[in-house]
Amino acid sequence: MKKYSIGIDFGTLSARALIADVENGEILPAVYSFEYPHAVMTELGGKALPKNYALQHPRDYIDAIDYLIPRLIKENGIAPEQIVGIGIDFTACTFLPLGKDGEPLCFDPAFENDPHAYAKLWKHTGADKYAPRIEEIAADFGDMLKITGGILSSEFMYPKLYETYVESPEVYKNTTKFINAGDFIASLLTGRQVRSLAYATIKEHYDNSSGAGFPPREFFERIDHGFADVLDKLGREVDRVGDSAGSITPEWASRLGLSADTQVAVPVIDAHGAFGAAGIEDGRVVAALGTSAVIAALSSEKKYVPGIHSHGYGATAPGLMSFEAGIRAMGDLYAWFVGNCVPAEYERRAKEAGLGIHAYLRSLAEKKEIGESGLIALDWWSGNRSVVPNDKLSGMIVGLTLSTRPEDIYRAIIESTVFELRRVCENYSAHGVKINSFIATGGIANKDPMLMQILSDVLGMEVGCLGSSEATALGSAVWGAVAAGCYPTLEEASAKMKLPIAKTYYPDPARVAAYEKLYSRYVELYDYFARENNVMEFLYNTKHK
Amino acid sequence: MKKYSIGIDFGTLSARALIADVENGEILPAVYSFEYPHAVMTELGGKALPKNYALQHPRDYIDAIDYLIPRLIKENGIAPEQIVGIGIDFTACTFLPLGKDGEPLCFDPAFENDPHAYAKLWKHTGADKYAPRIEEIAADFGDMLKITGGILSSEFMYPKLYETYVESPEVYKNTTKFINAGDFIASLLTGRQVRSLAYATIKEHYDNSSGAGFPPREFFERIDHGFADVLDKLGREVDRVGDSAGSITPEWASRLGLSADTQVAVPVIDAHGAFGAAGIEDGRVVAALGTSAVIAALSSEKKYVPGIHSHGYGATAPGLMSFEAGIRAMGDLYAWFVGNCVPAEYERRAKEAGLGIHAYLRSLAEKKEIGESGLIALDWWSGNRSVVPNDKLSGMIVGLTLSTRPEDIYRAIIESTVFELRRVCENYSAHGVKINSFIATGGIANKDPMLMQILSDVLGMEVGCLGSSEATALGSAVWGAVAAGCYPTLEEASAKMKLPIAKTYYPDPARVAAYEKLYSRYVELYDYFARENNVMEFLYNTKHK
Repeated sequence: MKKYSIGIDFGTLSARALIADVENGEILPAVYSFEYPHAVMTELGGKALPKNYALQHPRDYIDAIDYLIPRLIKENGIAPEQIVGIGIDFTACTFLPLGKDGEPLCFDPAFENDPHAYAKLWKHTGADKYAPRIEEIAADFGDMLKITGGILSSEFMYPKLYETYVESPEVYKNTTKFINAGDFIASLLTGRQVRSLAYATIKEHYDNSSGAGFPPREFFERIDHGFADVLDKLGREVDRVGDSAGSITPEWASRLGLSADTQVAVPVIDAHGAFGAAGIEDGRVVAALGTSAVIAALSSEKKYVPGIHSHGYGATAPGLMSFEAGIRAMGDLYAWFVGNCVPAEYERRAKEAGLGIHAYLRSLAEKKEIGESGLIALDWWSGNRSVVPNDKLSGMIVGLTLSTRPEDIYRAIIESTVFELRRVCENYSAHGVKINSFIATGGIANKDPMLMQILSDVLGMEVGCLGSSEATALGSAVWGAVAAGCYPTLEEASAKMKLPIAKTYYPDPARVAAYEKLYSRYVELYDYFARENNVMEFLYNTKHK
Repeated sequence: MKKYSIGIDFGTLSARALIADVENGEILPAVYSFEYPHAVMTELGGKALPKNYALQHPRDYIDAIDYLIPRLIKENGIAPEQIVGIGIDFTACTFLPLGKDGEPLCFDPAFENDPHAYAKLWKHTGADKYAPRIEEIAADFGDMLKITGGILSSEFMYPKLYETYVESPEVYKNTTKFINAGDFIASLLTGRQVRSLAYATIKEHYDNSSGAGFPPREFFERIDHGFADVLDKLGREVDRVGDSAGSITPEWASRLGLSADTQVAVPVIDAHGAFGAAGIEDGRVVAALGTSAVIAALSSEKKYVPGIHSHGYGATAPGLMSFEAGIRAMGDLYAWFVGNCVPAEYERRAKEAGLGIHAYLRSLAEKKEIGESGLIALDWWSGNRSVVPNDKLSGMIVGLTLSTRPEDIYRAIIESTVFELRRVCENYSAHGVKINSFIATGGIANKDPMLMQILSDVLGMEVGCLGSSEATALGSAVWGAVAAGCYPTLEEASAKMKLPIAKTYYPDPARVAAYEKLYSRYVELYDYFARENNVMEFLYNTKHK
């Protein structure tokens, strides 16, 4: 009997699920997505929510499971007992409060109009005004901030919880547990309280490398005396990634059409999910290139790298440190350019050529020699996320002349994001994280061969492209397979189940040398604007006055 | 009997002439322009000329006089004897070779296919390859280069003459005189060899402040032994600006319908012509704002200002130093933006609003608070002309974000050119040239009130706008009036004949303070890119490889 694992990738606006053969990772043909009906909520009880709020309705997560799993089993024609495991990945630090009955507090009519009773999505920044003080306090607690590259922003757990404590004492009082959304799903399916190390270690500063665990009670008391009991609402025990969180309950097994022997994996963070599809290995970098970019790395060494906002020892697999760096605007930046800087003449010509505007610009840009545009850009249109994290940094272009054309700027912007990827990689290397292989996933990796070749030339190394939009969900199925005992380790499971490399880009020595010169000037400008001259912060403050 | 003076402004593509009342400067209604039939020549004898050539046919200058003067007299209904003077301004360092008969060499059929026999326009850069070595030699000759801010480019006289010496020995040998085009007109009309101090002092390094005069023979010998006789082809005597070059010859008087008593003024440089219309005064700055910008100043002090490419002691009026600084691309830069960076949506909305694209962008940009764009730009899209002259400098924009809109960039670019105007003024002040008043002329001054208000706020001083497109030609008429003896000095003549200020822009204290902060950050970036980091030169070289 062939065995299978279900992988569910809970994204920001939808969940995507598939069934993979545990032996070789082959994905069964029927794959489904479920868009959250409430998406990111913009109003509640007829009232608009503040702009820095990003709430979700946990009913959507449950509806996603009810929609996806029965369909997957039925349409792929699998017997329930063939599904041995379920793996789940979810965005990090999206969490919700549960009431006395263990149900989401927002299901209780008494709280249905209180925004704090809903799930606060990872990008909810309603706690902006509390974060700086909490960061200041955290700095007094030894190495606490090293996990997050020295910062503690409003997107993290404690500011979000403190926001609830201050702004909705009733919700806070009636909350029995604050739970990460990924853990919520695993808890629901297994009937026990799951608390994944993956979420705990990064956004909640659980120090798993020294064994220090969660921040001490004093930290919470310093924030507010009455806030110290938040620890009791979180739970002190964590579940190891790679383990089973438990068997699915008979009720859920029957509701979804599964066997009650199915194991539910301890959930992981979405950004790490792709490692399952790329292969979980020391020295591997996986870059997910989309509207934004995540550059994640795995290392067998317990290093802490400055400028990297997340370190999770054991967050992907036991014994490995996982790192996450990022670019806030990648595809978003190219879209900005197309939306704001492309003349009518270019749109007309693209249409004539039967090309989309990106494809048309690329057709012009790819004819250029390296350096022919005469431009260098810094790509911080949405701030810098690494390696000098600062929301107030902004974009810069230098080298403009009367002969500069839109395709020159388009190419310079693309190069600037690629340079930033290299800077992140060099920052890893400079701090002892070796990079043996670089694998790209995501829409840009699959659709833009010009960019991928530039990436290989700028990095001076081979770049493999996974070429599938199922990488993250497949990755989750790897954790499911290990939870079910099909493999002794995640490394072995992913080695068998990973996706094939769809295309490899090879560096060209002449192009590598040409980019080397441009890149060194880019680094100079990077350091000048990120560290030496605070003009970008000045401009940010002037703009937001 | 009312007395009148004719002013003729010889521009790059046309000549414009008018008649002004010498008592009050009133311009008679009929004003004429003559477009040069050969414009800037792109071919000769059926062959295309090199790209860095910019030649003119001197026949066009003569045709301009024959066309303009009789018409002016006839259509304005003036008696010949009422015209007491003629003033002429011409671009600087546009010169031509004359043959044995005193006629332009290109009129001789033996030379009609030799490009060196024609007039080399100010912007002819065919001598690019000779200029660096000549500049190097000049640096050994004391203060010689101080007049031109330390540089000697291919647009200057000696490289252009040396180009002829090397590339067309026959033309060189058969040239009896190399003559500036303005002097050519004055010589033609008066029948004597005119050599205006205005042209000699700047592009030919005639030192009129120390009394050193032209560079010594050794300078020319260092360039090339056989080239030393060029001095004999130029003439050593110069005519003082403000004097009469002589009466018009009876032949030309009859040909043009003038009295033989009419005095022809020693010609001046076009960039200084506007002082006649603005008022020739110590401490006055006149900025001509068009496709490029000229910021000229007058001072009673014999100062030499670094970074300013022309100093002419006595070039505008005896006893005054005239300075000329500039911005290479002003209107050209705004046009670049409109041609390369404005989305179709904006063109559609401009059309709907019944506005030109500039007016539409301005309507959006002028609603913004100072600093709201969050951008600072350096406007060197066509290099920096002052105060750190360098053709290889280029444009830069910093502060770009995903919320940046085209009107933000448009405004930042406009502000960058205005900041550059202030930098030029501060450079004057810092080196002892006081600025008492600032007057703007040109198309941009007349058409863009938003920019003019920004200019006043950035400078923190009143800015007067002449509001007439006749400023330069009227200015020339002032020199004509003085040549005719109507006034003892140019200062007195211009005080009576100058144009009224059409509109004055007043600085607003709150806006002055807001711009002060932006400007100080602009200066930091200016110095960084112009002096500390040579990345712009690097990019220029990469682009032009």
